[in-house]
Amino acid sequence: MNEFDLIKRYFNPSTQPVVADLGIGDDAALFTPQPGFQLAISVDMLVSGRHFFADVDPWRLGYKALAVNLSDMAAMGAAPRWFTLALALPEANPAWLAAFSQGMFALAAEHQVELVGGDTTRGPLTISIQIAGEVESGTALTRGAAGAEDDVWVSGVLGAAAAAVAHRVEALSLAEEALARCQDRLELPTPRVALGRALRHLASACLDLSDGIVGDLAHICARSDLRAELVASQLPIDPALAVLPLSLQQKFALTGGDEYELCFCAPVAQRDAIARLGEQCGLPLTRVGRMLAPQVGARPVQLVDDTGATLDFGQGAFDHFGA
Amino acid sequence: MNEFDLIKRYFNPSTQPVVADLGIGDDAALFTPQPGFQLAISVDMLVSGRHFFADVDPWRLGYKALAVNLSDMAAMGAAPRWFTLALALPEANPAWLAAFSQGMFALAAEHQVELVGGDTTRGPLTISIQIAGEVESGTALTRGAAGAEDDVWVSGVLGAAAAAVAHRVEALSLAEEALARCQDRLELPTPRVALGRALRHLASACLDLSDGIVGDLAHICARSDLRAELVASQLPIDPALAVLPLSLQQKFALTGGDEYELCFCAPVAQRDAIARLGEQCGLPLTRVGRMLAPQVGARPVQLVDDTGATLDFGQGAFDHFGA
Repeated sequence: MNEFDLIKRYFNPSTQPVVADLGIGDDAALFTPQPGFQLAISVDMLVSGRHFFADVDPWRLGYKALAVNLSDMAAMGAAPRWFTLALALPEANPAWLAAFSQGMFALAAEHQVELVGGDTTRGPLTISIQIAGEVESGTALTRGAAGAEDDVWVSGVLGAAAAAVAHRVEALSLAEEALARCQDRLELPTPRVALGRALRHLASACLDLSDGIVGDLAHICARSDLRAELVASQLPIDPALAVLPLSLQQKFALTGGDEYELCFCAPVAQRDAIARLGEQCGLPLTRVGRMLAPQVGARPVQLVDDTGATLDFGQGAFDHFGA
Repeated sequence: MNEFDLIKRYFNPSTQPVVADLGIGDDAALFTPQPGFQLAISVDMLVSGRHFFADVDPWRLGYKALAVNLSDMAAMGAAPRWFTLALALPEANPAWLAAFSQGMFALAAEHQVELVGGDTTRGPLTISIQIAGEVESGTALTRGAAGAEDDVWVSGVLGAAAAAVAHRVEALSLAEEALARCQDRLELPTPRVALGRALRHLASACLDLSDGIVGDLAHICARSDLRAELVASQLPIDPALAVLPLSLQQKFALTGGDEYELCFCAPVAQRDAIARLGEQCGLPLTRVGRMLAPQVGARPVQLVDDTGATLDFGQGAFDHFGA
């Protein structure tokens, strides 16, 4: 099967494009943006052995490759619209491609986003998805507009994805049921698109957690010229981690990557509205700290106990070029 | 140097974004499209050892990675506006990155396109660029609207890029001057953006040559439900190939990839206007054949001599999954 056949077989939507005016098969796709909206544009690259284990289920890999991009749209408060896929494959394996494309398209259908272009080539397994969404002009959630004294919130529960990785590299051993839960969190993250859309009118700043809350929140601090305090006891930790020592639970929750929950800042006056929103979304939204004026010598993100005393914690954000 | 430092150092434009409302450094970039325009969206992935030699000059690689994407915009008649870069690197080599980014930004400045987002990770050297341009609604050049009896045109001269590859793999040996010319054509292709814009009002169909004119023109045939005849003696062959046997020159011109010239169809009535356009652009535009009604059993693209008799030629388009 050659390159053109492959693309046709697995990545050509069977119907005419809906979102795009012209879809796959030309030099470019064409798309008519809505007046009064801004486009939000983002890209992610996933490399075998670094962002996923080489033996990962291909359906789940296709799902996750799109999910992490949808999560960027959620973090901007944008409605995702279309994406392109660049895919390097070591070989043309039809079974693998069928499963990969099905996982990707299942999530695409759920969010009504359309694959509008792609490039397939032979090479070490690498997936690059570029996504675009639309957001009403001037309402996007950025990292740069948090206010001092704003609350820091996080959606969902944290730590499970990191625990799944630790189990896989034999740094710990999880029981079957806990492992299944943690693996699902690692491999099938739920992009919080509806939450992101709703937060446009409540939050001052927002991002999605990909490298651990400590490192990620530091980006909001840097762009907003503030620092942050996280209260250790308030971190919402995944119940699947309950059997682990508390220090390890907290470590995973603070520095574990691959969460794809939203971390956002909001004025104190929005507490009730945010609590109601969490109920509407059926998703825990937890106040985990607050933003503070910058202070010379202070860390951008500081962990404290219930009395406000500083706590120490291990490593920072996940760094793809770190040791 | 960690991932965040790397991105900042080499890929953060020093000035505020011009094209984008919000550039690199958030979960997504923001961009306000012009009313009355469609967006043209395309993606390409370049893998080391497949699309370029691993020892290629990094300045040239950065230039070419963007050039092949600009070429897709040219083929649509779109004005390129912004791009995203996903980059996997085996190591964080500052000298390599400095040269790569300089080559990329040199061409970006020439075409006033802006890098609005990116993702950098460790992995086998892989470059994926996604580009978007704007085109006045309803005027984009597609592959599907060629007419029977339309002329087939090509810009520039063909064959040099393929000759450079043949020299490199020792399939032939070029003299120093011819080699330099061929290598420049391979490594520094000129995206025909101005030509593509001008062709919106003259051409019926258009694409850019990446896999050889025979294979590429077959895409126009398929989408337009036509076939094509190419006249061997009319192919514009790069003068640097003059020392090679004519059959080899023609083989390179017909099936050699990496040309990034435009191949387009136009009604006979546009011949004079196209000739004038070539003079304006300072670029040879050559009539190389014509489109014909489909015929059962006929090849989509047929090579003929001056009398119209069928000629045979070797392999078809370059196929990334072929043998």
